[in-house]
Amino acid sequence: MSGTYSYARNAWYVAGWVSDLTVGKPMAMSILGIDLAIWLADDDVVAFEDRCPHRLAPLSLGRCEGRSLRCMYHGMLFDTDGVCVEVPGQEQPPRAKVRTFPVVARSGWVWVWMGEPALADAALVPEVFGPDDPDWMLGSGQLDYAAEARLINENLLDLSHVSFVHQSSIKGGPAFSEALPKWEKLPRGLRYSRWMTNVTQVSGGETRNLADAGPVDEFLTYDFLIPGILVMYTGVFPQGTALEFGHRAPDRSRAIGGVSVSSQAVTPMRERSTRYFFSAGPSRAQGAEAIRQLQVELAQKAFAEDKVMIEAQQRVIDRAGDTRVIPTAHDKPITLFNAMVQRLDGIASNPEAAR
Amino acid sequence: MSGTYSYARNAWYVAGWVSDLTVGKPMAMSILGIDLAIWLADDDVVAFEDRCPHRLAPLSLGRCEGRSLRCMYHGMLFDTDGVCVEVPGQEQPPRAKVRTFPVVARSGWVWVWMGEPALADAALVPEVFGPDDPDWMLGSGQLDYAAEARLINENLLDLSHVSFVHQSSIKGGPAFSEALPKWEKLPRGLRYSRWMTNVTQVSGGETRNLADAGPVDEFLTYDFLIPGILVMYTGVFPQGTALEFGHRAPDRSRAIGGVSVSSQAVTPMRERSTRYFFSAGPSRAQGAEAIRQLQVELAQKAFAEDKVMIEAQQRVIDRAGDTRVIPTAHDKPITLFNAMVQRLDGIASNPEAAR
Amino acid sequence: MSGTYSYARNAWYVAGWVSDLTVGKPMAMSILGIDLAIWLADDDVVAFEDRCPHRLAPLSLGRCEGRSLRCMYHGMLFDTDGVCVEVPGQEQPPRAKVRTFPVVARSGWVWVWMGEPALADAALVPEVFGPDDPDWMLGSGQLDYAAEARLINENLLDLSHVSFVHQSSIKGGPAFSEALPKWEKLPRGLRYSRWMTNVTQVSGGETRNLADAGPVDEFLTYDFLIPGILVMYTGVFPQGTALEFGHRAPDRSRAIGGVSVSSQAVTPMRERSTRYFFSAGPSRAQGAEAIRQLQVELAQKAFAEDKVMIEAQQRVIDRAGDTRVIPTAHDKPITLFNAMVQRLDGIASNPEAAR
Repeated sequence: MSGTYSYARNAWYVAGWVSDLTVGKPMAMSILGIDLAIWLADDDVVAFEDRCPHRLAPLSLGRCEGRSLRCMYHGMLFDTDGVCVEVPGQEQPPRAKVRTFPVVARSGWVWVWMGEPALADAALVPEVFGPDDPDWMLGSGQLDYAAEARLINENLLDLSHVSFVHQSSIKGGPAFSEALPKWEKLPRGLRYSRWMTNVTQVSGGETRNLADAGPVDEFLTYDFLIPGILVMYTGVFPQGTALEFGHRAPDRSRAIGGVSVSSQAVTPMRERSTRYFFSAGPSRAQGAEAIRQLQVELAQKAFAEDKVMIEAQQRVIDRAGDTRVIPTAHDKPITLFNAMVQRLDGIASNPEAAR
Repeated sequence: MSGTYSYARNAWYVAGWVSDLTVGKPMAMSILGIDLAIWLADDDVVAFEDRCPHRLAPLSLGRCEGRSLRCMYHGMLFDTDGVCVEVPGQEQPPRAKVRTFPVVARSGWVWVWMGEPALADAALVPEVFGPDDPDWMLGSGQLDYAAEARLINENLLDLSHVSFVHQSSIKGGPAFSEALPKWEKLPRGLRYSRWMTNVTQVSGGETRNLADAGPVDEFLTYDFLIPGILVMYTGVFPQGTALEFGHRAPDRSRAIGGVSVSSQAVTPMRERSTRYFFSAGPSRAQGAEAIRQLQVELAQKAFAEDKVMIEAQQRVIDRAGDTRVIPTAHDKPITLFNAMVQRLDGIASNPEAAR
Repeated sequence: MSGTYSYARNAWYVAGWVSDLTVGKPMAMSILGIDLAIWLADDDVVAFEDRCPHRLAPLSLGRCEGRSLRCMYHGMLFDTDGVCVEVPGQEQPPRAKVRTFPVVARSGWVWVWMGEPALADAALVPEVFGPDDPDWMLGSGQLDYAAEARLINENLLDLSHVSFVHQSSIKGGPAFSEALPKWEKLPRGLRYSRWMTNVTQVSGGETRNLADAGPVDEFLTYDFLIPGILVMYTGVFPQGTALEFGHRAPDRSRAIGGVSVSSQAVTPMRERSTRYFFSAGPSRAQGAEAIRQLQVELAQKAFAEDKVMIEAQQRVIDRAGDTRVIPTAHDKPITLFNAMVQRLDGIASNPEAAR
């Protein structure tokens, strides 16, 4: 992908749901402008570039044959390393190889490493809440944006928009924009946290499964990790808890309700095309099936609102000669995160530099 | 907009119908490649460039708050001069300003001046027949062309096409192409006039509300004004009237029927995208509701015929390496008008030169 | 058309079916990026470039008037040589001329010569089986590909894809890919032939109208001619016929059934847009109406399978920085044919060089 913004290559990107992988048939996906055919060789996930070296047919239209993938145009066959092992009609296969990518299935998502293969470290896969998490009742969904991933990342790094874009869905009120949250640096991202004290109406409203209990303190935190992974926790605590913990992270066991989590992944497919994956729901301890459903519906409604705004923003940017912005106090984490992204590939390919 | 043809900047363009302006919500429109958010500050019309200087979200998705407009992405607030007066989450607003455009609501249309603001003169707004005109029963409509405005202007400057494109709708017969009309120069445009004498079938046929009265003289005239405004009058007169007035403009009070007017506006939105606004109908004195309806339907049918031809012409031009044309006798007003357009911005920014 | 591949200009291209030509109304078609208006001047077919020299309106929207074609925008009239003979509203027509192309109606198809007009030789029109052929019961069809013609030509020059793309339609089995066919050079193309011996299931299955008769020998041959014309014959012979004829072309009168032919034409319209025309069916001697229908349906199903693969291949190529391929044994005719195409225009414009 061209453009002035460059995404981190040395990072794990979400390519899709593990449950979307089917036996016999590759899954097509594009990340950072590269087309992929992701397939199951028995129980192993394999990620190929989606082009047969013979005459450039897509391998995602191919057929899995045990631990091999066959191009279904003229029948070239490849092993899991991408090496051509058979061509119909000739004795010896030619020296042909498909490009492969490191891939991991974890927490319900398929993660692909788009950078230097030697640097792919499965320990760098972010810990997220997958749909099968034993502690949480999670629903999930996805949607595509006709916008570049950077704009969605920036949306997630500045929740002041909740007061405006989501005024009638999340109903977070003016708190999200009038006061600044706390931000901390993480090794590969940033951590947001915000207390809202003495509130009688929590954000998310009826999706929070809270009995009416007078004023409470509400805590919201999320990590936003490279390349664009959000892992969120929110819970409601007795009035005074924020003060007791010095407005820092509370002991989560003290929550009295409204506890839920969400994992979200922003995957740049092409220059102005992004796929957004998310899971959300309450804790199994406090939740109910109906609450899970309400939270997924709220997420879908809110993301649809974001999509309208962000795709319109993309059109303005595409038409503008001058795309300079005027940063505000809420924009600091955007500047920090983007600088972190720009530095990452240099650091990753030179581990000494990271110390 | 790029391209070899340049439109007049120092001119009033129609952005839409006054009746499309609603309280609380801006109207989006694009003129000459510039996106606009046009909104009501109490009773005043305000035209902003449709981009928030914060992060380039469109202000047409914003919310009017009295005499201010708020961007609904992160809440920046602007006064009617485009000056940022509030940013949620910080004490002082930054020095941020939205570009504004002179704007006037008149004759049912919203007019925006796209050139040098200091030169905007409301006296230059063309006098047209608006939907609320007390003397005329006007209906209205609009349609978009996937073609550049210049091609539509040229269509309106050469009515010889009526004999061919509109042979089965307007049924103007060969008169429109076989004889040349009379053209006069106006300060900011050209005036067309044509007498058709001793006719038994007037153009527009059954939409003209004429009792069968033997041969008559028909008079048709219109001004075509920069940047692309057409103001038309047509009426039927007793046989001999053309001769009596030396084939010049008649005393309109002598018309015996078939009197109607039309106003039309051609607004270049983007390079190959144009919006066409029109009103049309009979005089209240002679008209009837049914006649108004018939005339609007005829206009819609005829403009749909133009649209097929002009969009096809645009495709030929886009594909052609060589776009030179071969002018005919009917093309003279096109040459005159285009030269007038090319000269206009120089004259306007140097009023001395116009004397 | 740009791009690295260049199509033969000095060749007859199929523009459409003769039956699509209608009196009074031109037919629009594009070949090699040039738009054409093809029309009937009495019984003669005439091919014009589809642009009026006046103001570049398309002549395919025009009206045939006897042996003249009138542009229906402003009425310019042209004779069959493309010379302007009338302009409404002026005495003398201007010196204006439409570009014309040599054109021939033969075997049910309209053929247009896109190269040097002086070199157009009707003897070079390929002999194909048209829908009115007295010996064959032919059905026909057409479809458009969002892909360049070269990819479809290459598909037709390597039938090893039948084993994979058409595994469930034509059911040709592994024979098409496992063994190489025989190829011969022709003056303007290549000839494919293949015997399949001792087969109990012929390709095309139930569309071949064969009583169950034990193992047979099946013969398939086609010429693939510049610019992209395929003329195919297939028949079933008694077991042993292949051996008897030394695996060369048999005496066709010895066929015991399953005899059918097909003509196919690949016409490059624009850079990534191709029209595919085909006729197919059994011999009148052995055929039946139901068999003709089955064969056309099978062709439509198979071409739809090709279309999915080839359009996907085109997308891979468009996105790829590096479009080099890895040729296999089956690809030799592709290399030969493409070299023949590249040499053709040089030879044609210098007939001496061809000796």
